[in-house]
Amino acid sequence: MAAGNILNHMVQYRTTPDDAFAAVADPTRRGILERLGTRDASITDLADAFDMTLTGMKKHVQVLEDAGLVTTAKVGRVRTCRLGPRRLTKEAAWIARYEEMLNARYDRLEAFLERTKGD
Amino acid sequence: MAAGNILNHMVQYRTTPDDAFAAVADPTRRGILERLGTRDASITDLADAFDMTLTGMKKHVQVLEDAGLVTTAKVGRVRTCRLGPRRLTKEAAWIARYEEMLNARYDRLEAFLERTKGD
Repeated sequence: MAAGNILNHMVQYRTTPDDAFAAVADPTRRGILERLGTRDASITDLADAFDMTLTGMKKHVQVLEDAGLVTTAKVGRVRTCRLGPRRLTKEAAWIARYEEMLNARYDRLEAFLERTKGD
Repeated sequence: MAAGNILNHMVQYRTTPDDAFAAVADPTRRGILERLGTRDASITDLADAFDMTLTGMKKHVQVLEDAGLVTTAKVGRVRTCRLGPRRLTKEAAWIARYEEMLNARYDRLEAFLERTKGD
């Protein structure tokens, strides 16, 4: 059964320990990713761009780094941030399967309503 | 410029206040959505299925309800949960644009490496 297969896939993915969803749940962190999408930036650049303290920005970058979405490298006194190595492929796949399941559900409901219309 | 357009879209979306990413960042909450994808369930059913206390399950359902991903209705003493009305369309679109931006970035890097190979 299709719904069962989708569910199995989802349950399997659910056990993945590292979770990028939490990292992108924050609008500032999504903004940091978007910015790094155009060019690499130092923590200071990012703090300026988002009008935040260095300490605040470091925390956000740390969360992104822990999720594997950002890599940082220190050269001299400057820590530069860049995207990667992790992508959001699994997260996109989870959402796609969820939407697929929702659609299947709506289809079944519609078919049921259609069947019972004459009763 | 394509990258600029993508960025504008992203910044626009960033201001959306209600955030479903945070709701699906928790593996138990993703599990609840998956389960509700197969059938509606009471809070008690869900608490049993996830081996949690009623109080713990109520909190998770509340987060999903606040995000619009789950609707609950009380009939007699039983509160039934079902999916909707919100879908994850915007979240899927954000991830898709992010991946697109990453790809564009890798392409530019590759082109640069190709150009400088002979130097």
